[in-house]
Amino acid sequence: MSFSPRIRQLIDGLRGLPGVGPKTAQRMALHLLERDRGAGRQLAVALEAAMDGVGYCQRCRSLSEEDLCRLCSDPGRDDSLLCVLQSQADVWAVEQAGGFNGRYFVLKGSLSPIDGLGPEEIGIPALLASMQGRAVTEVILATNPTVEGEATAHYIAGLLRPKGIRLSRLAHGIPLGGELEFVDGGTLAHALAGRTVLD
Amino acid sequence: MSFSPRIRQLIDGLRGLPGVGPKTAQRMALHLLERDRGAGRQLAVALEAAMDGVGYCQRCRSLSEEDLCRLCSDPGRDDSLLCVLQSQADVWAVEQAGGFNGRYFVLKGSLSPIDGLGPEEIGIPALLASMQGRAVTEVILATNPTVEGEATAHYIAGLLRPKGIRLSRLAHGIPLGGELEFVDGGTLAHALAGRTVLD
Ligand SMILES: [Zn+2]
Ligand SMILES: [Zn+2]
Repeated sequence: MSFSPRIRQLIDGLRGLPGVGPKTAQRMALHLLERDRGAGRQLAVALEAAMDGVGYCQRCRSLSEEDLCRLCSDPGRDDSLLCVLQSQADVWAVEQAGGFNGRYFVLKGSLSPIDGLGPEEIGIPALLASMQGRAVTEVILATNPTVEGEATAHYIAGLLRPKGIRLSRLAHGIPLGGELEFVDGGTLAHALAGRTVLD
Repeated sequence: MSFSPRIRQLIDGLRGLPGVGPKTAQRMALHLLERDRGAGRQLAVALEAAMDGVGYCQRCRSLSEEDLCRLCSDPGRDDSLLCVLQSQADVWAVEQAGGFNGRYFVLKGSLSPIDGLGPEEIGIPALLASMQGRAVTEVILATNPTVEGEATAHYIAGLLRPKGIRLSRLAHGIPLGGELEFVDGGTLAHALAGRTVLD
């Protein structure tokens, strides 16, 4: 099938989205071209604005279009409580679950020596630096309940325990070996409320 | 969940794609922002080019960025054979099935008096006009095998039969009541090869 150049380019562009194969891309292209060009133009503008204008928060390392993200600059949140997560998707999942009003720090994944991901690569020194001069009394180590996530929590706990900071993990209820991002909000809210203190 | 404006706009823009709900849109936005900004920029460029630069072929009414589409301007195709379809998706489906080397005409759907879709609305006068001065000897009425599609084929057959043009329908093999667009290529190629002549 030889599509004309702009239609070909559109189908190829849509295949750059995760989970979109050739048939789905064709269906999307047809929908936009035949039924909703306004939606196509809006998406183009939104993509440009986001790809060029969204960076990372200097404090918590979450996606942000300001130096300091909305969660870090919100004066209504509890500075004494810091939740450490291993991805941006997890921040969104916890926020959407509700029930947490502290601050966040986003690691770049979890420790995985096989993949060359050590403390530096995933941002643990940046986590410690971000805590300096702040009155954090509890750190919730909300990494995934996987081998790597547990190892990451354990490693950070070893660094923070000498500072007398209360350390906690999310309560179980989260399926073992599962990914935080895909847990339903209710379970996640429950796990947050029932978080266990590390001794 | 209060996303920052550009991230909110991106998620909303992605929801303009068919079949993309809130969770999928978030996952797509994260993928583009965190893993592939190049793909996001390419999609933006492709959308702009396509939404503004793709119109309709003046002869066959299929999507085209030129006055005459590639299929109409290809000198290697058989001018004596005209396949009438009820959507652009059907043109792509027939082309992808292979085995057809004639020309096309794309109706805007099928006759549906209840919905106010008469011959004028779906482009039947334009079909007749496009055939003037051309040596079409056979018209394949490849509308869907639904009540409306059959009625549309029947209506067009009534107009063309007096002109001595051979009329055909796609061979069965296509599931009754089904949509052409979703039939697999093999079945579609088979149905084309075994098309039946209307008496
Ligand atoms: Zn922040
Ligand atoms: Zn054409």
